Amino acid sequence: MAESTTARPPETSLIPVIGSGQRRSVKVTALGGGHGLSSSLSALKLVTGSLTAVVTVADDGGSSGLLRQEMDVVPPGDLRMALSALCDDTDWGRTWRDAMQHRFSSSKEGVPSSLENHALGNLLIVTLWQLLDDCVAGLDWAGALLNARGRVLPMAEIPMVIEGEVLSVDGDGQPVRETVRGQAKLAKAGTIENVRLLPEDTEPCAEAVRAVEEADWVVLGPGSFYTSLLPHLLLPGLRDSIMQTSAQICLVMNLDLNANETRGMTAAEHLLVLREYAPEIRVNTVISDPSTVQDKKVFEDAASAVGAKVLWASVSESDQPGVHDPLKLAAAYKQVFKH
Amino acid sequence: MAESTTARPPETSLIPVIGSGQRRSVKVTALGGGHGLSSSLSALKLVTGSLTAVVTVADDGGSSGLLRQEMDVVPPGDLRMALSALCDDTDWGRTWRDAMQHRFSSSKEGVPSSLENHALGNLLIVTLWQLLDDCVAGLDWAGALLNARGRVLPMAEIPMVIEGEVLSVDGDGQPVRETVRGQAKLAKAGTIENVRLLPEDTEPCAEAVRAVEEADWVVLGPGSFYTSLLPHLLLPGLRDSIMQTSAQICLVMNLDLNANETRGMTAAEHLLVLREYAPEIRVNTVISDPSTVQDKKVFEDAASAVGAKVLWASVSESDQPGVHDPLKLAAAYKQVFKH
Repeated sequence: MAESTTARPPETSLIPVIGSGQRRSVKVTALGGGHGLSSSLSALKLVTGSLTAVVTVADDGGSSGLLRQEMDVVPPGDLRMALSALCDDTDWGRTWRDAMQHRFSSSKEGVPSSLENHALGNLLIVTLWQLLDDCVAGLDWAGALLNARGRVLPMAEIPMVIEGEVLSVDGDGQPVRETVRGQAKLAKAGTIENVRLLPEDTEPCAEAVRAVEEADWVVLGPGSFYTSLLPHLLLPGLRDSIMQTSAQICLVMNLDLNANETRGMTAAEHLLVLREYAPEIRVNTVISDPSTVQDKKVFEDAASAVGAKVLWASVSESDQPGVHDPLKLAAAYKQVFKH
Repeated sequence: MAESTTARPPETSLIPVIGSGQRRSVKVTALGGGHGLSSSLSALKLVTGSLTAVVTVADDGGSSGLLRQEMDVVPPGDLRMALSALCDDTDWGRTWRDAMQHRFSSSKEGVPSSLENHALGNLLIVTLWQLLDDCVAGLDWAGALLNARGRVLPMAEIPMVIEGEVLSVDGDGQPVRETVRGQAKLAKAGTIENVRLLPEDTEPCAEAVRAVEEADWVVLGPGSFYTSLLPHLLLPGLRDSIMQTSAQICLVMNLDLNANETRGMTAAEHLLVLREYAPEIRVNTVISDPSTVQDKKVFEDAASAVGAKVLWASVSESDQPGVHDPLKLAAAYKQVFKH
C-alpha cells in the first residue's frame, strides 16, 4: 500500500500510565468490535500508553447500517465507540466524546427526524472519510479530536458482510438449516455454524496487520463471539498475522456467555469453537470471571488445549454482573502483561 | 441572565495580527448573516485579534430550516459559516473547517440519503446545543474545535421568524400587497416593505448586546439587506445597544446591489431604507466599491444624512465582481479602524 499523502493530525502525546512502572509502555493491539471492545479499551488505556484497536467492519444495523446502505462506507459505529472509549480524560476529551456519542431524536412529537437515531460521531467519521478519501487518516483525525489515548483502525478499509448458517426448528419440529446474511440478523439468529466474511479476498488494513505484528500483546475479546471476535480470524491476511506474530495473545471471555449468539454454549465450548475456526491458534492467557464458569477444571483443560493458562479474575461491575468494570479489567490486564 | 455553569472550552489565544501595529487589537463586533458576514469575518480576522460576530437567527431554508422544523433549534447554518470563516489558518483549523462545511450526498444512484444536503457543522452545533443546553457555550465549543480567531454569537437564543409585505402585480396588472413569512421565501419575493421579526418581545443574546456595547467598532453588513442586515435593527434590545454604543459604526455596502431583495434599488436608496427602519442611526463610515455606484454625489449625500463619510475602495474579487476579496476588504477595514 502506497504511503498516504493526506494531511495527518498532530500525534497525540503518550501519557504516563498509572502504575505501569515500566520504561516503555507495553505495546497492545486489541481486536474486537462493539461494546465489548469499548469496555476493553477503557481498561487498556489505564495500563498502557501504546495502544491500537482493530475493529470489525461487518456491522449493518442501526445508524451504521443506514450510512453503509446510503453511502457505501465502512460502518462507522464500532469505530466511533472504540474512539470514544479512548478519549482523553479531560474536559476537552469528555465533551467531544459525549458529542461523538450523541444520538439525534426529534424533539417535536409527531415530527419524525431525518436524523433519527444517527450518532453524530458516525456522521463526523463519514465526513472525514469523504473529505480525506483515506479511511485510516479519517480515524486518526477523529482520534485527534478526542485526544485519544490510542489509535483505532478498521480490520479492512471496505465494508464487509458476515454470513453464517443457522440451525432452528420448523413448525413440525424438524431441524432447519438456513443461511443468514448480515451482522444484525446473525447476532439474533440462534445457533450459528460456518460463519464466513465476504468478499473473501478482501485485503486487511495494512496498518492493522502491522499493529498485530509489532505488538507485545494481542488482546482478543471480550465481545460478541461470532460477530465481533471471530471475524478477525476469518479475514485471511489478518488471521495470518495473528498466527505469525511474536506477540503473546490474551483472550478475554465474555461475562454473559449465554447471549443470543452463543445461547447454550459453555465457556469451554467457546474455546472449542475458536479452535474449530483457527486450529493453529495458540493463546497465552485467558481472562475469565470465576462467577461465569461452572466447571472450572473442564475450562482450564480447554484453555490448555490452545496453550493458555487461565487468569481467574472477578472483572464485572458489582451492580451489573454482565458488564466489565474498567478498573477491575485494567487490574487483570496489568497482571497479565507483567508476565 | 444567570451565569452559565456549563463546561467552557479552553480560551483561544489571541494571535498577533497582520499589520495592526497596535498594542491592543481594536475590538470589532460584526453584525450580519449568511455569506456576506462570512466574507467580512475572513477579512476582519486579518486585522484584529478581538473579534465577535453576531448572527441572525431567522433563517428557515435548507439544512437549517429542516433542523429547525424537526428539532426546534436556532438555525445553525449562518453560525456555522461564520465560525468556519474564523477558523485558524493551520492544517488543524482548515481540516475542521472543511469538515464543518461538508455536505452529505448519497453516493449511490437512486438511493436518496437521509442526510441529503445537511452540513456536518450544522449537526455538530445542534449536538453541542442538545448536550450542553446552552446556546452560547455550544458555539464556543465549536469555535474551540476550529481554534477560531474570534467568537460567534446568535442575535437571540431562540429561533425567530422574519415577515414582511411584498408588492407584486396580479394577472390584471393591479398591484397586490401580501404578507410573506420566512426568510427563504422573503429573500426571493421581490419588493419588500414593513419587515418585522417575531416573536416581537424576544430578548437578544446578552453576550451579543455586551459585544456591541464594548466594541470600538461595530460593523454592519455586507449581506442580504432585508434578511441579514436589517434584522439586527428589528430586535428591540439589540437595536437599542446599536443606538447607544460608544463604538463607531461602519456600514459595508453589498457589491451586488440588485440582488433579489433589493431589485431596482440604488445604493443611496439602501441608506434611505436604513433610515426608515432606524431613523436615529448614526454611521461613521460607509465602505463602498466605486464600481457599484452610479451617482457618487447622491450616495455621499445619503451617507452624510446618517452622519457617515464614504470610503471608496475597490473590494471585489478581480474575477468575481459580486464577491468580496477578503484581502482587499481587510485593507479597507484597516484604513477605517485607523481613524
